[in-house]
Order: sequence, then structure tokens, then C-alpha cells
Amino acid sequence: MAVPLLFGRYRAELEEALRAALPQGSPALLYHMMRYHLGWEDEEGRPLASAGGKGLRPTLCLWACEAVDGAWRQALPAAVALELVHNFSLVHDDIQDGDTERRHRATVWSLWGQPQAINAGDSLLVLGRRALLGLHDEGLPAPRVLAACHILDEACRELIEGQCLDLSFEEIPDVSPEAYLEMIAKKTGALLEASLHLGALVGTDDEALAGCLARCGRRLGLAFQIRDDILGVWGAPAVTGKPVAADIRRRKKCLPVVYALATAQGGTRQELLRLYAQDSLSDADATRVLDILEALAARDYCQGMAEERIAEALAELRGATISPTAYGDFQELTTFLLERDF
Amino acid sequence: MAVPLLFGRYRAELEEALRAALPQGSPALLYHMMRYHLGWEDEEGRPLASAGGKGLRPTLCLWACEAVDGAWRQALPAAVALELVHNFSLVHDDIQDGDTERRHRATVWSLWGQPQAINAGDSLLVLGRRALLGLHDEGLPAPRVLAACHILDEACRELIEGQCLDLSFEEIPDVSPEAYLEMIAKKTGALLEASLHLGALVGTDDEALAGCLARCGRRLGLAFQIRDDILGVWGAPAVTGKPVAADIRRRKKCLPVVYALATAQGGTRQELLRLYAQDSLSDADATRVLDILEALAARDYCQGMAEERIAEALAELRGATISPTAYGDFQELTTFLLERDF
Repeated sequence: MAVPLLFGRYRAELEEALRAALPQGSPALLYHMMRYHLGWEDEEGRPLASAGGKGLRPTLCLWACEAVDGAWRQALPAAVALELVHNFSLVHDDIQDGDTERRHRATVWSLWGQPQAINAGDSLLVLGRRALLGLHDEGLPAPRVLAACHILDEACRELIEGQCLDLSFEEIPDVSPEAYLEMIAKKTGALLEASLHLGALVGTDDEALAGCLARCGRRLGLAFQIRDDILGVWGAPAVTGKPVAADIRRRKKCLPVVYALATAQGGTRQELLRLYAQDSLSDADATRVLDILEALAARDYCQGMAEERIAEALAELRGATISPTAYGDFQELTTFLLERDF
Repeated sequence: MAVPLLFGRYRAELEEALRAALPQGSPALLYHMMRYHLGWEDEEGRPLASAGGKGLRPTLCLWACEAVDGAWRQALPAAVALELVHNFSLVHDDIQDGDTERRHRATVWSLWGQPQAINAGDSLLVLGRRALLGLHDEGLPAPRVLAACHILDEACRELIEGQCLDLSFEEIPDVSPEAYLEMIAKKTGALLEASLHLGALVGTDDEALAGCLARCGRRLGLAFQIRDDILGVWGAPAVTGKPVAADIRRRKKCLPVVYALATAQGGTRQELLRLYAQDSLSDADATRVLDILEALAARDYCQGMAEERIAEALAELRGATISPTAYGDFQELTTFLLERDF
């Protein structure tokens, strides 16, 4: 399916601002690792034409600034900060999960080892935080810049809390849907909330309006993560760059499994617990889990949950004074996020 | 030797402010790991009476604020930020070096594993950064708070660059004294510079005066790290909590070894390179390295280097308009740092 035009609208200037926030620096290795991770360089440091991720967070930030009638270029430092902070979390996440591939490329730690990859992640976080101060150079008054710093710091705090929860779920046999939703609200929801909140903060001093967009971002983040969970189980390997049933093999307590644990009865539930209690799942085990999920219609349940969150996000927006064009752009984006296969 | 009285002057209020910046939070594990690392809790989460480290950075920050005739309590948020950021770097450093003990206690990663320890370090960095915003609540004007954010972010950037350099030195046979000094200026000098700079920034709007203190802090940081290197080779295990010749066994390119590599001739130099090219050093190998260092008077050289940096730091201070009392307190601190055995 086609990526919404919204992702293209800001791309050129966003990439320029990102590169300015992350110049060639010393030691070369540190900056090379970051540029490699962002998809700007290959393993040898040769420049790459293609960009890395979709840029969801910065795109949402710049859209939110426009939606509240602000000048989106003024929000570029916030957009850059969000993208760098998001990538900090990916670099550390890859170490924590032991993943050797992301977006069809070797992960930073698998190329340069865990100790240096920790530095690459730390550095992305710090450079992201530093980039946000550029809002002052864009003419935003100092107190508003401080408010932006507070929003980003709080989002980072929640993001790390969510990451800690996610890892700790691997150690316990059963996770309730409520606990799962709390985890993804922190791990994914907080930074998407901050994305819309920061864009709106730059574009308007109407705090109620900015608050609407912030809440909209949190709901969108939940939907985004749930769709991610669906793709982690049923995504096509050629598209996602992950093996079949990747998150099942890794015994992730993703929503399909959390739902199955909460609804399966008797022997089926015991079997699921037993399969997930193993150190690793064989092909046959993974297939059996998939069969259980299918029997429980777990996929439909998850997609329904994502759709509900999107409906809530859109309801928040309808309570906000934004233009029909901005609303339409957002709606197109949500359709994409719900249906995307990568 | 006795710890200077300066460390006691701010301790009670500093600890209170630190605890307020790092409350009990959710998930409990994340906050427990941080509180354990700071020495506030034991492995089981029971409160401990004794504090963790010396608190060098916050003490210097609060001293600097007083030295420029400021009200030191106003600088408490900066002092807290510095201590948390410093501890972020320690938690990640322990993972990167594979150290199982720090300050006679098991390290965070050795108790809770590397993935969760990465989160503990990340969280200390973020909470440190957030604590700095408290300067605004203390009445510091927003533009000055933004300047403080910039100083801390730049120090963090350098700190991580220095950490990256330090690790990369393990991979190369020979490191020049110049490269070593660049590394410790970043790894240790930057945050000590920021400590004095932030304290001064809170206490005065005289930028030239704050600049003097900042430069003084950088020199002090070099001296502090060099003394640390001396203790890493010749420190008493019972006092430092590290094995005999700890940094030699770990093949650290510490200043004594860097100096030896730069001054040893012919066969001795070749032997040193050969010993350090091994994966690990036996007791006999470590003793042989110590013999080489002794023959080259490496310890005297290093101590002399540290004393030179302290002299430079004091010279910076004499160019600044601070009270004789403040100068005297600093001088006492430098004597302690040069002679400390832990």
C-alpha cells in the first residue's frame, strides 16, 4: 500500500535538519555508528542514498504544528529531537533483544559489539536532547522551550519505563491485557504523544488545543504498537525483514499472545503456558501457537483494538479547532497505520 | 586521609534533593536498580544508611555557586543533575567493561543482567536531564536555564565521545600521550568542567568569571582522572575495592602504560606491546608490567602530570574574583584529590 503523501511533505528539510544535528564528529567510530543506524552510511562509511525509517514521529510533529496553524519549519528542532530519541531507543532495544537485523540490515551491536553500541544509543539520546534547544534559535520564547524540554524528558522517562516493563514481561508466565496496555502506553504511546504535543506547542500558545493533540498522539501510539504486534506475528518476512512468526519464536508477550492467555480455557491455556515457558520455540511449537491464536480469532481482536484506539484519536481531533485539510491528512495517515504491512 | 570538610557542607540537602529527583516509581525494578546503584538500597530493596560515592561533581557545583557569591541552594537542581548523569555513565561503563564490582558491591548488570542495566543507565541520564529544569523553579530566568541545559548536553556529548575513545583504545596496540589526554579531557574533564560552570552560571551573570571556573574544572578533571589511573595500577585493593594492578590485568591504556609505551626503548617496549597484545594477563605478566613501569618511574611521571594540572586549575582560579575562603576550600580539595587512595 502507498505511504501517505504527508510523509513526503517535510522529508527534504527534515533530513537536512537531521544531518545538521548529527555532523561528522570525533571519534569517527561513534558518529559512523549513528549515521549507519540512521541509514545514511553503509558499514564502511560510504554514503547511502536511501533514508532509514518512515520518520513517523517527526512527520506527526510537523503536521501537528501546521494543524494548529503554526509555521512547521519552526518545529524542525523538535522533529529532529524526536527522531534521534526514537533511534536511541531502537539501538538499545536491539542490544537488549539480541536482534541481529533491523530493516534488512545488520544492527549496530552486531557489527561493533555491545559496548560501543551502548555508546551509539547514548549519543543519539544526548544529541536528540541537544537538538531540541534549537527551538530557541527558531524564535520560540525561552519559557516555551523549557516546556518543550519537560515534555521530551517526561516522554523519555516513560519510554524507558515501558522498555523495562516489556523486558520484565519475558520473565513472567502470564501478563494481563491491562498490564500490556500500560506497557505500550509508555513504550510507544509516550513518544507519539510528545510528537504531537511538541508540534502543537511550537505552533500555538493555546494549551487546551495542544492538550487535545497530545491525547490524540497517545491513542495513535497505542494503535501503532498494536499493529506492530500484529505484524510481529503475521507479517510477511519479505516485507518486515523478520522471520515468520518472529515475536512468537522470541516468546514476546505481544497482544495476540496476551489476549490468548486471557481468553483460552483449560488445556489450551495450559499448552500455551507450557510452550511459552520454554527457552526457545521450535518451528512446530510456533505453528502450534499460531493455531491457538487462530482458533481464538486473536488477529481480529487485535485489529479491532487498534481500530478502537484510532477512533478515539480521531474523536480527540474532532474536539480540536484544526482545519479540515489537517484532519483529512491525519485520517489518511491513520488508515495507512492500520493497514500497513511493514 | 581525611575527606575535606567541603564534602560535608552540602551533603544533607544534596541527598534530600537527589532523593526527590528519583522517587519510588513504576516499574519498581527500574527505580530499585537506580536506588541500589546510588547506595540507597540493598539488593532486596531494603534501605541503606550509607550514601554512595563522594559526590565530587555536585559538591564542586555548589562550591562554584558560592565562590561567585551565589546562593548555593539555588544550584541544587544542577548538582542533582550532575550526580545522576555521572551515575548514568558508571552504570553503562560497568556493562561495557564487564566489571562485576564497584565500591565493594555487585554492579547493576551483574545482578539484573545487561538489558535491564542498560535501562537503569538510560533512566539516570533522563532523570538527570529533567532535574536540571528545576533551576527554573528556583527562580533562575528561563534563558539562563536554557544555557544550563546546553552546558550539560555538551558535557554529555563529550563524555560519551570520551567513553567511545577509551573503549577503542583497547583495540589498538599503542596510544600516544596526546590521544590519551584528549580522551580523558572528554571522558572526565567535560563533566567536571560542567560542574563548576553550572554552579557559577547559577551564581553570577558574569560570563567571564563563569568561564574561569569552567576552565578550572576541566584542568581539575584531568588531574582527577590521572590520579584515578594511578590508583587503578598501584591502589591498595582493600581501599579501592579492586584487585591488585586491576587496570593492568584488564589491559587498560591508562596513563602509566601510555607513558611507558611512549618512553620504553627497544626490547622493553616490544615486551610491553607483546604482554598487552594478549587476551588477558597472568599474575606473572602483570608483575612484569609493574616492573617495567617502575624502571621507567611511571608513577612519579603520572603524579607530576596530575600536579601540573592542579597548578593550572589553581592559576585559573587566581584570575577569578572569588573570596580567599572559597580559594582555600578549593585548594584543600585539590590536595585531597592528589593524595587520595580511594
